[in-house]
Amino acid sequence: MGRWEPGARERLEQAALELFAEQGFAATTVPQITARAGLTTRTFFRHFADKREVLFAYEEDLPALVARIMADAPAAAGPMTVTAYGLETVAAEVFEGRREKLRARRAVVQADEGLRERELRKWSVLSEAAGRGFRDRGADELTAALAAEMAVTALRLALTRWLDTGGERGLAEIVADVLGALRSVAQDEPARPVPG
Amino acid sequence: MGRWEPGARERLEQAALELFAEQGFAATTVPQITARAGLTTRTFFRHFADKREVLFAYEEDLPALVARIMADAPAAAGPMTVTAYGLETVAAEVFEGRREKLRARRAVVQADEGLRERELRKWSVLSEAAGRGFRDRGADELTAALAAEMAVTALRLALTRWLDTGGERGLAEIVADVLGALRSVAQDEPARPVPG
Repeated sequence: MGRWEPGARERLEQAALELFAEQGFAATTVPQITARAGLTTRTFFRHFADKREVLFAYEEDLPALVARIMADAPAAAGPMTVTAYGLETVAAEVFEGRREKLRARRAVVQADEGLRERELRKWSVLSEAAGRGFRDRGADELTAALAAEMAVTALRLALTRWLDTGGERGLAEIVADVLGALRSVAQDEPARPVPG
Repeated sequence: MGRWEPGARERLEQAALELFAEQGFAATTVPQITARAGLTTRTFFRHFADKREVLFAYEEDLPALVARIMADAPAAAGPMTVTAYGLETVAAEVFEGRREKLRARRAVVQADEGLRERELRKWSVLSEAAGRGFRDRGADELTAALAAEMAVTALRLALTRWLDTGGERGLAEIVADVLGALRSVAQDEPARPVPG
């Protein structure tokens, strides 16, 4: 292990995002990233397995976090309560404060077919973790799979909205809107009051 | 236009699915497919733009079907009523009776990265069509996007279950199970009755 570089991980991430945006993901090399960050490739590889993981490492603990949140929720809590609490925690611990980086990251991911597939796999792994969590809480397999998909869909939609808008509202607030809309859809509320 | 070949489309699809399964999607050529089906390449290209579309052409009208179903539903119907009626119609008109072919198709798609991405794009296009339908019915943008994602998620989960099981139950029945689970999740029903 070399000496500790303060903020090395953040500097590497920032440099990588800049280079991916400027010249594309495929054309960017690890030495270019470390040169821009003023760090060594050795330092890079202490933080990231490869350049792709700069885009995904930050969220790699998400399935473990979800498993912990779900195991800790009171047994009496229903799936929407667990989802609301879980997404609020995930918003605060993983995403808040990173909006500009996440916007840059999203543009890079959307521009590359392999990265798009990796991104979808990420959501699928997260959904599987949440599904295991709901099953461990006693849900039957269908309910667990569906609750997990709904939670991940709610998070995805909330993230998209949060990144698309000006950032005036926090992710947690937008998550609450999405879960409110989910409840009203499931309650079959018509879009407009019908006369008569 | 050459002469009409009875059942040509079905024979081409069957031959293609067999060859994709035997030797892989990438290694299979259109002349191999037409040779297996006993038809000409000219006939093939009257039915399909390329070999990939053999796997996707059957469902290409799905977004248009969804748009029609949603426009026809009574204005007073809420999003879950529209979803239930829509998925029942889609199950009957697009998927029922094709279970064995759909199982073979799924194995081919899962084995190829490009096909997996195409498959995900298919669901995304369908979700956009359903979202437009919900907006046209007066839903706000968030509710429309969420209702569309929930409908597509319900269809995907129901299809997976239908293809995974022995086929004793019809797709429409499984769709009804999934929508029932969706309602109970949204109502926050805990998995187990809690003592006290």
